[in-house]
Parts: sequence; C-alpha cells; structure tokens
Amino acid sequence: MKDEEYMKLALRMALSMKGQTNPNPIVGAVVVKNGQIIGMGAHLKAGTAHAEVHAIRMAGNEANGADLYVTLEPCSHFGKTPPCTALICKSGIKRVVIAVLDPNPLAAGQGIAQLKRAGIEVEVGVGKEDAYTMNEPFFHFIQTNTPYVTIKSAASLDGKTAAKTGDSKWITSPESRLDVHQLRHEHDAILTGVNTIIHDNPHLTTRLPRGGKNPIRIVLDTHLRTPVESNVIQDGAAKTIIFTGREINENKVEAIQQYGVEVFPFSTQTVLIPDVLNELGSRNIMSVLVEGGSEIHASFVKNDAFQQIVLYIAPIIIGGKEAIPFIGETGIEFVKHAKKLSFESIEYVGKDIKLLAKPIKEG
Amino acid sequence: MKDEEYMKLALRMALSMKGQTNPNPIVGAVVVKNGQIIGMGAHLKAGTAHAEVHAIRMAGNEANGADLYVTLEPCSHFGKTPPCTALICKSGIKRVVIAVLDPNPLAAGQGIAQLKRAGIEVEVGVGKEDAYTMNEPFFHFIQTNTPYVTIKSAASLDGKTAAKTGDSKWITSPESRLDVHQLRHEHDAILTGVNTIIHDNPHLTTRLPRGGKNPIRIVLDTHLRTPVESNVIQDGAAKTIIFTGREINENKVEAIQQYGVEVFPFSTQTVLIPDVLNELGSRNIMSVLVEGGSEIHASFVKNDAFQQIVLYIAPIIIGGKEAIPFIGETGIEFVKHAKKLSFESIEYVGKDIKLLAKPIKEG
Repeated sequence: MKDEEYMKLALRMALSMKGQTNPNPIVGAVVVKNGQIIGMGAHLKAGTAHAEVHAIRMAGNEANGADLYVTLEPCSHFGKTPPCTALICKSGIKRVVIAVLDPNPLAAGQGIAQLKRAGIEVEVGVGKEDAYTMNEPFFHFIQTNTPYVTIKSAASLDGKTAAKTGDSKWITSPESRLDVHQLRHEHDAILTGVNTIIHDNPHLTTRLPRGGKNPIRIVLDTHLRTPVESNVIQDGAAKTIIFTGREINENKVEAIQQYGVEVFPFSTQTVLIPDVLNELGSRNIMSVLVEGGSEIHASFVKNDAFQQIVLYIAPIIIGGKEAIPFIGETGIEFVKHAKKLSFESIEYVGKDIKLLAKPIKEG
Repeated sequence: MKDEEYMKLALRMALSMKGQTNPNPIVGAVVVKNGQIIGMGAHLKAGTAHAEVHAIRMAGNEANGADLYVTLEPCSHFGKTPPCTALICKSGIKRVVIAVLDPNPLAAGQGIAQLKRAGIEVEVGVGKEDAYTMNEPFFHFIQTNTPYVTIKSAASLDGKTAAKTGDSKWITSPESRLDVHQLRHEHDAILTGVNTIIHDNPHLTTRLPRGGKNPIRIVLDTHLRTPVESNVIQDGAAKTIIFTGREINENKVEAIQQYGVEVFPFSTQTVLIPDVLNELGSRNIMSVLVEGGSEIHASFVKNDAFQQIVLYIAPIIIGGKEAIPFIGETGIEFVKHAKKLSFESIEYVGKDIKLLAKPIKEG
C-alpha cells in the first residue's frame, strides 16, 4: 500500500471517534514495517492514551525501524499524558508521516522539530484535507475559543418547517430523524430556543439503536419562560443550561435549580449570540448543534455565527407566506445582501435529501 | 456490443432531439449486422422521416438480414409519412428490438403484430425505463390530451425567489440561468402570470449559445392587465397567447392583437388551470414550462396540475416570512396534507443545485 492508503486507514479510525474525545481532537495512527501493518489505534477519550501510543504499544519491539502514520502532529508537551514525541523517539520509529500540523499556533511544528532533532524522517501533508475537515470543530475552537456551530433543520422543498397552524409532524422521514441523532452524538452541546421547548417539549437527547452520548443541552430563554415541567428540566438525561437576560424571576430560578439545571443570566437585557458562544467556549464546549426554530436560526445567521448548515429537505410542498420558514427574519432586503454559502455535499437519506452548506467569508 | 448498448446509442440519439419533434415523440434507431453498425438515425422533425427510415436508408441493401433497434414501437398506419412497419418488412430486417410500445392504447402492439406476421423476430422492453422517461411528456399528452407540466423555479436555500422588497436579481448563477434556456428549448410552451410580466417584463425566449427554439408564450391574465408595451407583446419573437377571464376591455384586446398576439378569453370569471390545460392540449401543445411567480406555482400545485418540478437552489439565505416564497399560498394547514413528491435527481449546476421532483399519486 502507499502512504495515502495507510493514512486513509488512520483517518477512518479517527473519524469513528467523532463525539467521544472532547475536548481533544479525533486522531488515528498506524505503524507499518516491511509493508505489514504492525500497530494501529485511535484516541478514544480525553485523559487516556493518544492514538500514537496505542499503535506503538500494539507494535511492541517491532516498532523499531518502522514507519508511523498519524493524522495530527504528535504532541511534544506534558498534558494529561506524557508527550508522544518522546515515546516515538524511544520506540525506534524511523519515519513519521503526518496529515496536519497542530492547530495551536504556539505548538504547531514543535512536535515535528523534536522528531527531526532525534534523526527521524518526517513527512507532512498526506491526507491533509480529510484530516482538516474531520477536526474542523477542534481547529475552530482552538483558534477562536468559541464552539463550531452547526445549524440543523428539516424543511419542505419550499423551506418550511411547519404549516401555518404550527403543525410540524413530520416533515422528514424516520431515516433523516435517525441521522439527526448521530449528529447529536457527535456534538458537545445542542442549543435551542424557549419557544421550541414550549411548543415541542423535546428531550434533545441522542437516541441511536446502540446508544450514544447526550450533548449538553442549552436553552436560550431571555425571560426564563421555560416551564419547570418541561422534559429538559425533568428528565435528568443530560447537563442542561438555560441562558437568560438579566431580568428573571428568582423564585423560578430556584424552582429550576432544584432539578440540577443551571440558570445562567447574562448582564444584558437580551441574550446575545456572541456572548453565548464566548460562554460556551470558556466551558470547553467545542461544538454546538443548533436545533432551533426560525428565530434562533435567524439570530445565528444575522450574527454570522455559524460554520455549517445541515438541512434535511423533504419531498413535500407546504406553500405560502404564513407557513413557518426554517430561517426567520434576517432583515435582508436585497438579494445581493443575502448570506452566501457554498454547498459542500448532497446525499439522499431515505426519501429526503441531506444538504451540507458552509458560509463563504466575504472579503 | 450487447442489445442494451445498441439501444443506448439509439436512446442517446433520440434524447438529442428533445424540443424539436413536436407533436411527435423523440425516437432513435440503429441497424446492426454481424456486430457492425450499418445504419443509425433519429426522427428530426414532425412531417419528416421517422428514425427507422433514416437508419434503414443508411444501411441500404445491407439491411437485409440485419437487426433493428428502435426506441419506440414502429408505426403501422399512414400518418404524415407511410407506415414504418412496411419499410421494415420490405428491407429484409430479420429481428427488431423495441424499447417501449406505442403509448396510444388504440395503436399499441399493432406495429409488433404486423412485424411478427411478416416472420420478423421481435423483442420488447430493452431500455424501456429510459425510453419511457425521455418521452414522458409525449406519453402524458397522448393519454390525457393535456400538456405535461414542468414547474421551474429558482430559490435560495430557504425557498425564496426574492427578498421582501421584491428584489430578485440574481438568485442563481449564470450556469443555472443558461440551463433554464435549454429547458425552454425543450418545451412547446412557456407559461407565466401577468404579475411576472409587469414586474420583470421578460422575453421568455430561448437564448442558447448556438440558438434554440422559442416556446409558445402563454400569459395567464384574468383582467388583461398585460401592458401593451411589454416585451412579450412587442418583440415578435414567438407566438404569444394571453388567457383571460370573461370581463376584459375590448379596446385593449384590439391594441394587443395589432401586434399579432392572441387574446383568448375563457367564459369564466377567472382563469381556471384545468381549462388552460385543456385548451393547450387542443392546440397540440405537449409540454408546458411554468415559470411563474408564487401564485401561479401555487395554482398549479393546488390543482395537482403538474408532472414535474425543476428547482434550482442557490447557496444563499434570505430569511423571513416577508421574502417571496417560490410556492405561494396553497391552503395546506397540516403537514400530513402537504403535497407529496419524490426526488428524481440532484446535480450541481455551477454553484447551485438542480433538483428534479415529481408528484406522488396518492391512492
């Protein structure tokens, strides 16, 4: 096999870890000697061994003289675990192939420099697009200290999430709804607005056939209108935080806190999206899935506060101005001021289409 | 090559004729002997030779003992041209492979019966899905006496054709707008509403780099509000018909007729979609491209009067309830009553996505 193919295996292993390594990136590694794979592994969970460590351990003494493929530059510092570069040097690995550099500008290139000083041959960039894309939330977080935001919605072909009566059951197929649970598993947090809580009373948990990780639940609720009896407060299924403005009823705060739910009031009148993202960032939340209604989505769009839109389009027509659009009022008056995106992928999910779009930075 | 591959060539030739054979179907034919293609052709234009005739002529005397592949059952009656079955028999063709039967229930199977009586081996069904799909408008027309209706629109990701100010320039990319001209070329007629004429003053002509056929222009205009100075009346580029209700100003009718434009008043107060389709059918218009605004599209949706939607989705967000949706008010109040479609294809066109959906018959 070629370098690219060994790296693809490492990337594939890394990808399967999506959602379970926070606040660490997903990483995979493969050790190869004389054309035989002698070690492989991935980083499973923060605080446990890095991918390189698993792969080199599996190789044992055979690692001496072997090649290591790793999807992210090995760390060269003591964190929760000792530096990987030290283990690599000690193992006798003679060549290291790396997909992408450490995204932290202070650390980038340091692992490579250490390896080179030890006389190890280093190659960088094999599989870099895939390695970058799969860790985009991590890269974004490291560089901005705010989470990577994915707006997720389900709409009819004409962009409606509900009929004019508010009825929304069901826009998309069971297959799309299951796919959403995989998205929830892969995100650190899920965010919605109080209107969705009042209208739909969702659990916002991950329900996959083989289980999955529940994201932290975030509710934007300026006036603390979330009903105490709502599922996100009562079910105890996941950590839940309600972000509010400064004017809220203290009795209601206490009533909610009794259920272990945090109420976090900002010092502003309303809840501002940039403040929300900074607060989430400071809590090490790397990625947020926004499953809001029209108005929440519009707020993130207006603030240019999203990195990705995942839209499930159902093969149905609802029609009319009164039916609920998946993006509410943005104030855009001319097409030339529309938010510009690029379509990254399209696929069928059941009878629906799943569309992934990212905003284009305008210069 | 196998039967399927010869038929594919015949289908490919037929497909290239889309738009130029009205009111005839598109048909391709290939003659094969000893594994060599010795004749091929397609029906170019109504009133001229059928595909089989071109292919057999090219083969000349060599046709004797050859196989004929043809995408539609050969005709067995005298129309504008003599029956193809007679020519096939006379040519000495020994085997005929046919994709689909004649859609006219009175004629279906008769061509085959004649060939069999002459001792020719006949096989039916090779490539039938493709042959059916490419002639769907023709099949629909023959069976219903009304045109095959394609609703075409261009919308933002959130289903808007214009911002709330009415500004709509430009939702989609130049590539999509060019693609629309190919659609116009392929349709017998193009239909829009008077509001689009007043608001955009379009020519509704086919503008392709190498030319193309202009569809007949149809304007739905209950009160004959189309301005005499509008492009569709002034440019003389294509036959134009304005369908109106019964109450219209006779002076305005005369003013418009001076430009060779037909005004056709229905006996009803308003213009009813089923009446429009019947009238178009009686004029041998097999296919109509509906390029309307919200309300025209909603009328066709409400009447279940469409066979296909072609939607170009641009990678932009406009947002809000006030921006113009590509389908106007349908009266649908619950998602379970939404019009159900199936997605037939998705492809990228420039930066946009082109989506083809067809209604599902509900039983």
